[in-house]
Amino acid sequence: MKFVLAPDSFKESMSAAEAAAALERGIRAVFPTAECVRVPMADGGEGTVEALVTASGGEIVEVEVQDALGRPVRAAYGYVADDRLAIIEIAAAAGIHLVAAAERDVRTASTFGVGELITDALDRGAIRFVVGLGGSVTNDGGAGMLHALGARLLDADGRDLAGGGAALAGLRTIDLEGFDPRARSAAYEIASDVSNPLLGPDGASAIFGPQKGADPQAVRDLEAALTVYADVLAVDSGRSVAEMPGAGAAGGLGAAFLACFDSRMRRGVEVVMEAALLEQRLSGADFVFTGEGSIDGQTLHGKTPLGVAEAAARHGVPVIAFAGRVGPGADVLYDQGFTALVPILQEVSDLPRALTDGPANLERAAATVCRLLALGRSAGTPHGAQAGWATGA
Amino acid sequence: MKFVLAPDSFKESMSAAEAAAALERGIRAVFPTAECVRVPMADGGEGTVEALVTASGGEIVEVEVQDALGRPVRAAYGYVADDRLAIIEIAAAAGIHLVAAAERDVRTASTFGVGELITDALDRGAIRFVVGLGGSVTNDGGAGMLHALGARLLDADGRDLAGGGAALAGLRTIDLEGFDPRARSAAYEIASDVSNPLLGPDGASAIFGPQKGADPQAVRDLEAALTVYADVLAVDSGRSVAEMPGAGAAGGLGAAFLACFDSRMRRGVEVVMEAALLEQRLSGADFVFTGEGSIDGQTLHGKTPLGVAEAAARHGVPVIAFAGRVGPGADVLYDQGFTALVPILQEVSDLPRALTDGPANLERAAATVCRLLALGRSAGTPHGAQAGWATGA
Repeated sequence: MKFVLAPDSFKESMSAAEAAAALERGIRAVFPTAECVRVPMADGGEGTVEALVTASGGEIVEVEVQDALGRPVRAAYGYVADDRLAIIEIAAAAGIHLVAAAERDVRTASTFGVGELITDALDRGAIRFVVGLGGSVTNDGGAGMLHALGARLLDADGRDLAGGGAALAGLRTIDLEGFDPRARSAAYEIASDVSNPLLGPDGASAIFGPQKGADPQAVRDLEAALTVYADVLAVDSGRSVAEMPGAGAAGGLGAAFLACFDSRMRRGVEVVMEAALLEQRLSGADFVFTGEGSIDGQTLHGKTPLGVAEAAARHGVPVIAFAGRVGPGADVLYDQGFTALVPILQEVSDLPRALTDGPANLERAAATVCRLLALGRSAGTPHGAQAGWATGA
Repeated sequence: MKFVLAPDSFKESMSAAEAAAALERGIRAVFPTAECVRVPMADGGEGTVEALVTASGGEIVEVEVQDALGRPVRAAYGYVADDRLAIIEIAAAAGIHLVAAAERDVRTASTFGVGELITDALDRGAIRFVVGLGGSVTNDGGAGMLHALGARLLDADGRDLAGGGAALAGLRTIDLEGFDPRARSAAYEIASDVSNPLLGPDGASAIFGPQKGADPQAVRDLEAALTVYADVLAVDSGRSVAEMPGAGAAGGLGAAFLACFDSRMRRGVEVVMEAALLEQRLSGADFVFTGEGSIDGQTLHGKTPLGVAEAAARHGVPVIAFAGRVGPGADVLYDQGFTALVPILQEVSDLPRALTDGPANLERAAATVCRLLALGRSAGTPHGAQAGWATGA
């Protein structure tokens, strides 16, 4: 019997890798000889590096870069030497979690550190990148990243601009002559669940600026600055990307990837599934176990378990999803390829206790599910007791 | 496919009948054509009347009797006319829940109302009784009940004693001449999980008196009074019962049943299972679903799900137990005939919310289990999709 274990993280309770390990413990309590293939998942956001490093047998690299305010920060990314693959969460450098609310300045915040991360990976030999957009505190259209990789952003007098989105109002030229050729020739899989364009009422400044501390005046100023930037970028890169879905992701960082890199932007879970070779690992599987902290009818769309379920359906493998919370309306998911949604709580607990107990609860829930699967198998045979599966129960 | 649904009540959340109905709703969401046989269970304590009335198609009878302090109280019991069977919880008349803590007086508290309940059932035609002991606030050895049924408890001067356990210190004779002959000839199945004798350090007064408000002096006085009572009862009934297991149940009420009635005392769940014809209904069943509010390794012994599991094992039917709480150590129950222990909570909730949501959570949990059973069945066939069971999922 073969189980593929492809959970997302259970936020604030356990990482995807820890969840996969808990699932395996539960399975082995009932089926000691089962084959368990751990493929921890992520949606391109927090946890993507850890999940893919675990799934790929890669390593975590730590490097000092600039955060969005230009301060030094230790940032981690993943590197799989065999595949010359780097896995980057842009939030490791430009993340909103690194800047206290009172310190945020969306006008000057820069993605420079993201470029530093890419450079470090290129130095290490990377020719392929998985990049998780999301969680940024910036609104600079990726100008900082381009600058870190050797581009020059110049005003009408040929002087370098200051960093940050607001300064782009004075942009006249993006000089790509010094742009790192390794960066240009590498292939980028961009994981983003944001399909907003760069500009306009659905654009980066209007939609995401306020979350990053932009007041209405700052939104207007940044919109104007990114409008200039979009025009210059189209001319100097030769690609007009402002209208493209996802150009507005991560404060317009999406636009820079689309214009200046060999990049493909897709739903986060699809990028992760492909990088983790999930579909290959589904071959011959009897069951897929997935899960995340919370599942309900409203929030699941686009999230990891749904992507896993879609992939499993293509291979005819049934999917069981575990969750700390199975919320109202979750039953609609039974129409989308899930065979069972299993809540893992064992007793009334407050949230901190439930989060602490998460791995133990998940292990128990997985064991219980295996007992029921074995029972269904056994009850389905002509002579009840003759299960075809070896159980240790 | 046939499911037998034999849950106990989920205390403070739903009755056994409500739990069985929730299980059936969950099953039918997945297996619309399944045969569901509801056999709500109880352990002889609270909920026994409702469970057995539901299981037997009987009726609830309400009658005014005396509570332990002699005050009028509306008490309910069950009656199954076809079987001439009455189902009584002695707590309906002599219950501790009817008397506020400050009002309790274990010296004078009387089981007179229990005798009134029996009389009402005899008037209705009862020739068989199921009696749930437990939950009493009395310590009168059942003297009050005997008096209500026509016995006279006389002192050395031939005068009737006052009610309550303490007055039995003056007992000289129990005159059974006026004892209701219908009461004597009826058959009583006494459900009790208490095996204490009437007297001594393990007796009714010493062990249960303090819970009913007896201070150390009251315990000594009641022990002395019941010692007199035991001697007189042995002489006048012709049966020496004080040492018998269960004689000390319900403040010695067990002794009166053992001495003066055609009674058999057994573990509560066994009495209930027999009265509900559980074993007959297990014939041909594919699965038994049971459950109660809380299941763990320490508390389950002797409780309803364990009894149900033992009965199911005799018929080779697998048992799945649902619980609001699956507590530490519950795994030991996998060695006692349970196939799976399934917690029903769907998300973090405080206890009041969990209790309110109990029926909905149980329904969902039952549906999830059915999905997993169907999946196990399906995955066990040579061609995955060809489940032998009709599902509506």
